[in-house]
Amino acid sequence: MKIKVIVPVIGEGFLEPTKNEAEKYSSEKTTIDVENLAYGTASIEDYYDEMLVAPDILRIVKEAESDGFDGVFIDCFGDPALDAARELVEIPIVGPGSISMHIASELAHRFSVITVLEDILPLIEDMAYKTGVGKKLASVRSVDIPVLGLEDEEKLMKNLIKESKKSIEKDGAHAIVLGCTGMMGITEKIEKELNNMGYQVPVIYPVAVAIQYLEFLNSIDISHSKRTYRTPPEKERNVYESLK
Amino acid sequence: MKIKVIVPVIGEGFLEPTKNEAEKYSSEKTTIDVENLAYGTASIEDYYDEMLVAPDILRIVKEAESDGFDGVFIDCFGDPALDAARELVEIPIVGPGSISMHIASELAHRFSVITVLEDILPLIEDMAYKTGVGKKLASVRSVDIPVLGLEDEEKLMKNLIKESKKSIEKDGAHAIVLGCTGMMGITEKIEKELNNMGYQVPVIYPVAVAIQYLEFLNSIDISHSKRTYRTPPEKERNVYESLK
Amino acid sequence: MKIKVIVPVIGEGFLEPTKNEAEKYSSEKTTIDVENLAYGTASIEDYYDEMLVAPDILRIVKEAESDGFDGVFIDCFGDPALDAARELVEIPIVGPGSISMHIASELAHRFSVITVLEDILPLIEDMAYKTGVGKKLASVRSVDIPVLGLEDEEKLMKNLIKESKKSIEKDGAHAIVLGCTGMMGITEKIEKELNNMGYQVPVIYPVAVAIQYLEFLNSIDISHSKRTYRTPPEKERNVYESLK
Amino acid sequence: MKIKVIVPVIGEGFLEPTKNEAEKYSSEKTTIDVENLAYGTASIEDYYDEMLVAPDILRIVKEAESDGFDGVFIDCFGDPALDAARELVEIPIVGPGSISMHIASELAHRFSVITVLEDILPLIEDMAYKTGVGKKLASVRSVDIPVLGLEDEEKLMKNLIKESKKSIEKDGAHAIVLGCTGMMGITEKIEKELNNMGYQVPVIYPVAVAIQYLEFLNSIDISHSKRTYRTPPEKERNVYESLK
Amino acid sequence: MKIKVIVPVIGEGFLEPTKNEAEKYSSEKTTIDVENLAYGTASIEDYYDEMLVAPDILRIVKEAESDGFDGVFIDCFGDPALDAARELVEIPIVGPGSISMHIASELAHRFSVITVLEDILPLIEDMAYKTGVGKKLASVRSVDIPVLGLEDEEKLMKNLIKESKKSIEKDGAHAIVLGCTGMMGITEKIEKELNNMGYQVPVIYPVAVAIQYLEFLNSIDISHSKRTYRTPPEKERNVYESLK
Amino acid sequence: MKIKVIVPVIGEGFLEPTKNEAEKYSSEKTTIDVENLAYGTASIEDYYDEMLVAPDILRIVKEAESDGFDGVFIDCFGDPALDAARELVEIPIVGPGSISMHIASELAHRFSVITVLEDILPLIEDMAYKTGVGKKLASVRSVDIPVLGLEDEEKLMKNLIKESKKSIEKDGAHAIVLGCTGMMGITEKIEKELNNMGYQVPVIYPVAVAIQYLEFLNSIDISHSKRTYRTPPEKERNVYESLK
Repeated sequence: MKIKVIVPVIGEGFLEPTKNEAEKYSSEKTTIDVENLAYGTASIEDYYDEMLVAPDILRIVKEAESDGFDGVFIDCFGDPALDAARELVEIPIVGPGSISMHIASELAHRFSVITVLEDILPLIEDMAYKTGVGKKLASVRSVDIPVLGLEDEEKLMKNLIKESKKSIEKDGAHAIVLGCTGMMGITEKIEKELNNMGYQVPVIYPVAVAIQYLEFLNSIDISHSKRTYRTPPEKERNVYESLK
Repeated sequence: MKIKVIVPVIGEGFLEPTKNEAEKYSSEKTTIDVENLAYGTASIEDYYDEMLVAPDILRIVKEAESDGFDGVFIDCFGDPALDAARELVEIPIVGPGSISMHIASELAHRFSVITVLEDILPLIEDMAYKTGVGKKLASVRSVDIPVLGLEDEEKLMKNLIKESKKSIEKDGAHAIVLGCTGMMGITEKIEKELNNMGYQVPVIYPVAVAIQYLEFLNSIDISHSKRTYRTPPEKERNVYESLK
Repeated sequence: MKIKVIVPVIGEGFLEPTKNEAEKYSSEKTTIDVENLAYGTASIEDYYDEMLVAPDILRIVKEAESDGFDGVFIDCFGDPALDAARELVEIPIVGPGSISMHIASELAHRFSVITVLEDILPLIEDMAYKTGVGKKLASVRSVDIPVLGLEDEEKLMKNLIKESKKSIEKDGAHAIVLGCTGMMGITEKIEKELNNMGYQVPVIYPVAVAIQYLEFLNSIDISHSKRTYRTPPEKERNVYESLK
Repeated sequence: MKIKVIVPVIGEGFLEPTKNEAEKYSSEKTTIDVENLAYGTASIEDYYDEMLVAPDILRIVKEAESDGFDGVFIDCFGDPALDAARELVEIPIVGPGSISMHIASELAHRFSVITVLEDILPLIEDMAYKTGVGKKLASVRSVDIPVLGLEDEEKLMKNLIKESKKSIEKDGAHAIVLGCTGMMGITEKIEKELNNMGYQVPVIYPVAVAIQYLEFLNSIDISHSKRTYRTPPEKERNVYESLK
Repeated sequence: MKIKVIVPVIGEGFLEPTKNEAEKYSSEKTTIDVENLAYGTASIEDYYDEMLVAPDILRIVKEAESDGFDGVFIDCFGDPALDAARELVEIPIVGPGSISMHIASELAHRFSVITVLEDILPLIEDMAYKTGVGKKLASVRSVDIPVLGLEDEEKLMKNLIKESKKSIEKDGAHAIVLGCTGMMGITEKIEKELNNMGYQVPVIYPVAVAIQYLEFLNSIDISHSKRTYRTPPEKERNVYESLK
Repeated sequence: MKIKVIVPVIGEGFLEPTKNEAEKYSSEKTTIDVENLAYGTASIEDYYDEMLVAPDILRIVKEAESDGFDGVFIDCFGDPALDAARELVEIPIVGPGSISMHIASELAHRFSVITVLEDILPLIEDMAYKTGVGKKLASVRSVDIPVLGLEDEEKLMKNLIKESKKSIEKDGAHAIVLGCTGMMGITEKIEKELNNMGYQVPVIYPVAVAIQYLEFLNSIDISHSKRTYRTPPEKERNVYESLK
């Protein structure tokens, strides 16, 4: 299948590593195309950024369907513009946050999300309730590192372990969901280290989940409900030519 | 107080009637300023339109605070860009949907929302859960008339009465919330007609509620929690000059 | 508008300060009439006191409607006799607890109530669920001071700050609701002090909210649902002559 | 054990039949004492009546404990004054509504309550959520007969069967709870008739449940939590001499 | 009445003490018959053991009905095979877990369960939600002693007190439910000791509750809903001859 | 990967068609091994059958791990023995019911399950709540055909369409989940026919979902939480030699 990965920020720094990660978790027959935004923000850390990046995400989603892609992965844990994108097209659109929380709910009694900044906690809690698994959410915690500081792997690892431990001990989590798609290449290390500390919990990496979920949907030939995500009626819209 | 009313669509047709309604429900000392979007859509009837209108709403919100307004009313029942707007500023920002549902919950055991099109039902149900009163929502029903067809008052009245009756009889509603701010000038007529049919239920008009709520917040000098809606950190944002 | 404020205890000590607070938060055109109970208890701190004060509250509510008042404020956070009062009359009856919790839910992701004694915690939690915002309640905490000891402002301030801090840090509250209408004249001080400690959270004062809510309901000419609060059928009742 | 049954209305008409029913469902060693109110209402059909009967119920509860009774049954499905009564004493106090809903939840996937008038529906729904089994409540329906008209057994039977059938077919009930303690002497007939119609559902009679529950609590020597229902602090109370 | 108590393990060590406890809490007219499993496990501490003991429990339940017993008590807090047993017969079948949690919910604002091992926490939380009182569950804690180590009464007492205290102080419990039927003969001691520490909370002993509940159901001649627990259709089943 | 499919009934009739379906939805590199029970029941239609088939399922699960299988699919919508199986081993064990309901929740606002007989409705509702998506369940309906009658495809199709239509129109479903793994080879036909009737909803086939989910878990190298599903301690168990 042909997957379009939208890296929904204006910088190009995440393009290469994201492509590598996406290819690592996709099957051989799948081709990955990565694209960032022309208009948006440097990173997404609140409702505000989610709103600013939405129109350009929608433009790319629309073009992806026209260009024959079989599915789109919006590569940000907060699932920006996901509902609107599903209204706009019929091919599967995947946001990593919702599906990662469903997988965590299926594999464990309760899970915690460890995200970047405390600013985004309400947004993630609301996502959990909206997608239907709020009851399974033990807590949302943060490593207190902005997206653009995640390249400091040592600090990231240290804080992820610390917050995971609190999630397990204090909040009763039985699984950990990495709450930012920028936390790349460390899932196995985290899981192993928690395991060594006596915590046998799955650590869920949203990029891997999202790519595999697109292949899953493609294999069983299913997509989102057009009764939930109805095609928008035509009307005057002057944001992008392609989105009228 | 000085209230900025954002009519979050690109057409100018709603400006005049909205100003009249807002002035009707505000106190004498309040001044109302109405503004529509430079970029957006002709009406808002799905998640898609909500995303397209958000950036320009945020631009106006930001400018409104700079220009000394004491509060902003985003005049669309779906509360587009509300969370992001509250992150951006400290003055009260009111979306009519959330507060109308809270008032309905306080005045009645259960309420129904009657909106324009069936397309928007999931969005309104999700809003009710997000703002905390999902348990009080009896149902969401629609008059099956697009926003730009609401000027046919006869049809609107007929369908509102029909759907209100179903909400009361079948879904157990004890209050009716009009689910579109474009349903202007008919609240009392609806309430009276339902009353004549033996249904003593309040009919809640979101424009009136939103304007009065802004005055309420102003009088007790309170605004949204900046711990929930944290001020976005500075970063590169290339959507609008004013929104970096 | 003409507002009747019922101070639902037998002592007269709260009459004067309550009148001052109510007038402070009402508009110029509003007149405030304050009345205490002939039969009841010296303060309200449990379900027991709520039951003992109810009949005399209902007598005054009934008389207030006959006397032409436009609304009644039952000045106790536990909303004693509120449901029954709404059954009895058609003018708006406001209990400060329910509406304060709705406003807190609208302004913040989650809120805590800080009340007088631990005895009343279950009652307040049940109120939150009954009025529909249980999901938004982070916690109920107490200052461990009885109503009749609240005049020790220093101790009250100290304990309110301490418990607010715990609510924010441990329970995840993003707004604080003062859980007793006897906590007068300190809201802004609390909010300011919390602000200085780095907690930008609204502090909600139920007396101010209740008075403003009555003006709000009056302005948009709406009252409680008589389908929820049906007028009691006539029957023999020998408690008060006026309440048969 | 010695049980005090409070028939919480002012008339004496229910005393004799209630005593008979209570004795029918109690063991030989139990003695039943029945008492009605000196001050209150002729029947209880809304929040209003619940408030008016509460003080005199509390007086009798207090006296019952002093007089050496081992438990009190407040004989009205709406459990008037139950919380306050439990605060006041340490002997078990039983309201038929809460415990009947718990038993129904234990015996069936979901249950419906069939009560007297539509006026009392919100009260019963709120009770179910408060006592913790709201999720198990399929519906509340009414026979549309006031308490003082229940002696028309033919009409009562007909409407109970009709509403039970709707509860089962439309609302998915698997058990029926009679929602008024005045529906005496018909439980088995209802259950048998529903059985003949192919509905094998238990019909739960609150008077039988309450009496048996008091014996149950007595046998295992347990009572309500005084941490939930804390003993009210002493203070001035001028309603009854005995209730200061 | 004739009660069959199934001690659902293969060892005989629990037979004698269980019989004594059951007789202690039953009335004089009741006869108790105790039986253990021919095939199963030495104790039940996870979903796995629950599955292995189920078929032999069902065989005994089926035989008990044929042999004229009036009710069956499956003596394990996890209520193994309870739903299936109720499908199989019409006489009341009682699992101690569900009914103990309902009684705790009726007597207190919130309760905690103190069980044997942490392994069984998810199972008990799921039980609470399934039987309808999940909202009332403050927490599940464990004494960290396996079932077959409970005879060390000193250690058991110490840990039960420690965990009960945490449940009350940290989790807000107002009642304690002993979460294993093997915790015999210590309920009053625990309650007394907690009382001495200032915690006036009921301690609920599931064996006493289950036996009394069977007598309760027998007295009011009621059993589980056969609409919930429908009689299984005949088909080929080769597990036990008696269970085809 | 090597997948063991357990057809958890004693007959061999489902082996061949199940193998075909599993191979249809698996990738080329995956090998499928199908096995039925030595001891159990001819079909599974209630809690009773779920209990009787559990021990032999667990035996096969245990052997599958020893034999080097990479995952196990328990081929019955009710997910019999799923929790216990996950306790017993570390390789992924998939029950089709839970994961199908999560996928439906992710793709649609609300979903309905259409199962075989009304007997199994409570079981499926409880599953939805237990796995965390109860809020997303619009309804459970049945085609009123036993498992062993599903080969009458015409009748099955007719009833599935009829009940799907009711689920969409009356219960507000936006996706349909086939509630029995024996409903083979008709998913696309159902989806197409509903589409022709104007209902653009995904129809989810649990066999396809389960097989693809096993490959998904295998690809991202993740399994269930051993903190939720702890390995059972060793003890005497006399059901099967291999399960001590």
